[in-house]
Amino acid sequence: MTVVLNDLAKHVNGRVIGDAQCEINGVGTLEGAQFGQIAFLANPKYRKHLKNTNASAVIIKEADKQNCPVNAIVVDDPYVAYAVIAACLNPIAPCIPGIHPSAVISDLAKIHALAWIGPQCVVEDNAIIGAGAIIGPGCLIGKHSTVGEGSRLDAHVTIWHDTQIGKRTLIHPGVVIGSDGFGIAKQKNHEWIKVPQLGRVCIGDDVEIGANTTIDRGALDDTVIMSGVKIDNLVQIGHNAYIGEHTAIAACTAIAGSAKIGKNCKIAGAVGIAGHLKIADNVTITAMSMVNKSIIEPGVYSSGTLLEKNNTWRKNAVRIKQLDIIARKVIKQE
Amino acid sequence: MTVVLNDLAKHVNGRVIGDAQCEINGVGTLEGAQFGQIAFLANPKYRKHLKNTNASAVIIKEADKQNCPVNAIVVDDPYVAYAVIAACLNPIAPCIPGIHPSAVISDLAKIHALAWIGPQCVVEDNAIIGAGAIIGPGCLIGKHSTVGEGSRLDAHVTIWHDTQIGKRTLIHPGVVIGSDGFGIAKQKNHEWIKVPQLGRVCIGDDVEIGANTTIDRGALDDTVIMSGVKIDNLVQIGHNAYIGEHTAIAACTAIAGSAKIGKNCKIAGAVGIAGHLKIADNVTITAMSMVNKSIIEPGVYSSGTLLEKNNTWRKNAVRIKQLDIIARKVIKQE
Amino acid sequence: MTVVLNDLAKHVNGRVIGDAQCEINGVGTLEGAQFGQIAFLANPKYRKHLKNTNASAVIIKEADKQNCPVNAIVVDDPYVAYAVIAACLNPIAPCIPGIHPSAVISDLAKIHALAWIGPQCVVEDNAIIGAGAIIGPGCLIGKHSTVGEGSRLDAHVTIWHDTQIGKRTLIHPGVVIGSDGFGIAKQKNHEWIKVPQLGRVCIGDDVEIGANTTIDRGALDDTVIMSGVKIDNLVQIGHNAYIGEHTAIAACTAIAGSAKIGKNCKIAGAVGIAGHLKIADNVTITAMSMVNKSIIEPGVYSSGTLLEKNNTWRKNAVRIKQLDIIARKVIKQE
Repeated sequence: MTVVLNDLAKHVNGRVIGDAQCEINGVGTLEGAQFGQIAFLANPKYRKHLKNTNASAVIIKEADKQNCPVNAIVVDDPYVAYAVIAACLNPIAPCIPGIHPSAVISDLAKIHALAWIGPQCVVEDNAIIGAGAIIGPGCLIGKHSTVGEGSRLDAHVTIWHDTQIGKRTLIHPGVVIGSDGFGIAKQKNHEWIKVPQLGRVCIGDDVEIGANTTIDRGALDDTVIMSGVKIDNLVQIGHNAYIGEHTAIAACTAIAGSAKIGKNCKIAGAVGIAGHLKIADNVTITAMSMVNKSIIEPGVYSSGTLLEKNNTWRKNAVRIKQLDIIARKVIKQE
Repeated sequence: MTVVLNDLAKHVNGRVIGDAQCEINGVGTLEGAQFGQIAFLANPKYRKHLKNTNASAVIIKEADKQNCPVNAIVVDDPYVAYAVIAACLNPIAPCIPGIHPSAVISDLAKIHALAWIGPQCVVEDNAIIGAGAIIGPGCLIGKHSTVGEGSRLDAHVTIWHDTQIGKRTLIHPGVVIGSDGFGIAKQKNHEWIKVPQLGRVCIGDDVEIGANTTIDRGALDDTVIMSGVKIDNLVQIGHNAYIGEHTAIAACTAIAGSAKIGKNCKIAGAVGIAGHLKIADNVTITAMSMVNKSIIEPGVYSSGTLLEKNNTWRKNAVRIKQLDIIARKVIKQE
Repeated sequence: MTVVLNDLAKHVNGRVIGDAQCEINGVGTLEGAQFGQIAFLANPKYRKHLKNTNASAVIIKEADKQNCPVNAIVVDDPYVAYAVIAACLNPIAPCIPGIHPSAVISDLAKIHALAWIGPQCVVEDNAIIGAGAIIGPGCLIGKHSTVGEGSRLDAHVTIWHDTQIGKRTLIHPGVVIGSDGFGIAKQKNHEWIKVPQLGRVCIGDDVEIGANTTIDRGALDDTVIMSGVKIDNLVQIGHNAYIGEHTAIAACTAIAGSAKIGKNCKIAGAVGIAGHLKIADNVTITAMSMVNKSIIEPGVYSSGTLLEKNNTWRKNAVRIKQLDIIARKVIKQE
């Protein structure tokens, strides 16, 4: 799609510097963009590429306009503006309604006339699929589950029974939602007995869930993912967890059962969050941290140790095991 | 299903306090349960909710009976009793035998007349499916694999060739069993050569395997999961690992090849266990621990560092890299 | 398949000691091998089993020949030689070309006459499948994606649109390639806006990708996995990552976006690698390490703490939070 620079600028409340009628047909990086493409400068790491860019225009902050050798759109937040402009230049194909003949659809399912059900899908009894929803190849929509208007399940997604999915939610391939939580009780004879998992998973609007992520159904009450939450790949969310609005969770993070996470949190990759604790709103947790008690104040939290050459790491790691003794010596010496 | 309190109590060898004929039709939490439901008090964190519960009855320990405002079943272990009662009130739908017409079944497969094969499944040559087994939508049962009596594969499960699965085993969506182990050998020219993975995966009875977990086949001998083992979501089990009876493994744990783990162990989430080592029976490993040598005694083991505010973490993390030097100074000062 | 020892030795440039005409029909471990099988001794941990082996022959180094009680093939690298011989004795079934009638194939897809498309597959518009490629049950090949000659996708693999896969690449069940990267931008109102993910995933020749691993498409440029890379199960590779030739990555490792990893690296399991950094060639990273800055020199790198009994770990973990203060005291005392 081709759009003139001025029209793109209007979409993002930006100010054009240079040729407002310049035609833009795509996006690119500062380094890779070609004639006709628009790039952006958000991360200062890449500022060095601005002066040599071949882009036809660049989305920049006010502070960078002096150094921009080409047309520009000046905005407060170039990354957000880039997201809007990239979506504008690369519109998602609209939903072409229908049901692929290879899909297996229960007579009791309610599929909106404007939804699409792809090949090799299974839609079970009493499932409800909203208008404009796209159920990609090989997905399963279990009994009594609902997929809201305009939501998209890319492929091979498993929505187990009684799951609620809101509107405009995007679920990537291989995701499993509504599998049993890990509820087991130890009997006297050492054998585990399964605790029935009777709750549901309820997912809000405008949520995104990354590939092969798993979200367990509640044991009694529901597991809840509020609207605007963004979840990356291979994340585990245990039974009865609650994730507040607009919280983002990066890949490979594990959230144990009954953890309650606030709004607007940023949880980096490979973090572990223990069960039955609370995390306040506006908390940031850095990568690979272990969260084993509640966090009551907003802020940035971390754990873990820094990378070292293996030979020095070995020496220091052994000393950590002696640290309480070392500390007592230091205190005594005082 | 509705059951009178007295009958539920008999199932769990419990003693009724209050109205033994009270009708119970479901389970709930102390906080959320309504009239007709039974709740339980196991975790002392939730004791505060006992006095205001709207449940018709509560499963409690002897010590809590004074403070229970409603009917009660008194037992030694309320959580185990709850598991039994919840299963009793929420029976799993029985297997309705048959083969969905969309399933692709080899003529050489042996499927018991009392098994169910769901839509979009594939069952390959010489696979054997036992009585009462439920193979949910989109599962693959590879060549020469066996699924025992009463086992259930929920959906999109991949059972690769020559895999043995016992009786009453429950496998959640997206699980992959029998994929090749990570066997590669470095050649002089720096290229890796694949080491053929010729063993199998053998899984016992009453095992549970969580969503998107992967269990690799053995390189030469088999990977073995003994009866009663419970595995959560997104767990990785490498080739030739051995997991002893009734061991439980929480989500996102990675177990490397040829690790031998004992009976009745409790392995928390996101633990890493190195290859070619042994862990004794009755070992507990706390979350996110790194196990890089054998554990020969029962007990509780841990590694990792505690969460801090990011600014103090940074200072302390730098000091860890100096710790051997600091320790030497302390020793010298003595 | 049965091969005489002498012929096996020729395959690996080895020297036979003993009966060169001895017939070998399979492989086994030193402990488990039976008459007719060949074993190998590579890991010194298993040397103790050499003297009692029932194998008909053993692949060994020169140094072990004195202690070998049976026929032997002497080579420089017994593990590499074993890999070659095991493959020779256990040839992979050849591709029997065809398209299973249950597969859903676009009229616009180009499938080579010598490829196999298994049951329940979906091949979308303009996908290209090369000669000898095997697309196992339940796979999806998205629009404009290419699978090269002789590549094999075992089962339930999702190849999302515009993905390039080279020759002889092996992809295990449940893998997702080409899902959107985790690109989101925070707006002033705290809501995230999705950043369109417009790049591709390009995978070279002779790559192996383990079960349930996820590889995200690039945001603008491509995510690149070079030839000869070997990736284990449940690995996450973020958008625009680059993995150099012959690098091996063990299970549960997470590689964030735009990380550039060199050639011939060995990355152990459950490692976390932050985004926008570079790792040199020939770097080894030990298990569960956190890599949060670039590594410019070859070598072995580590982070993390060692396993302890939980009661001592608790004491030491608390002291880590005081470490900067302790260190200052030590320096002051000097």
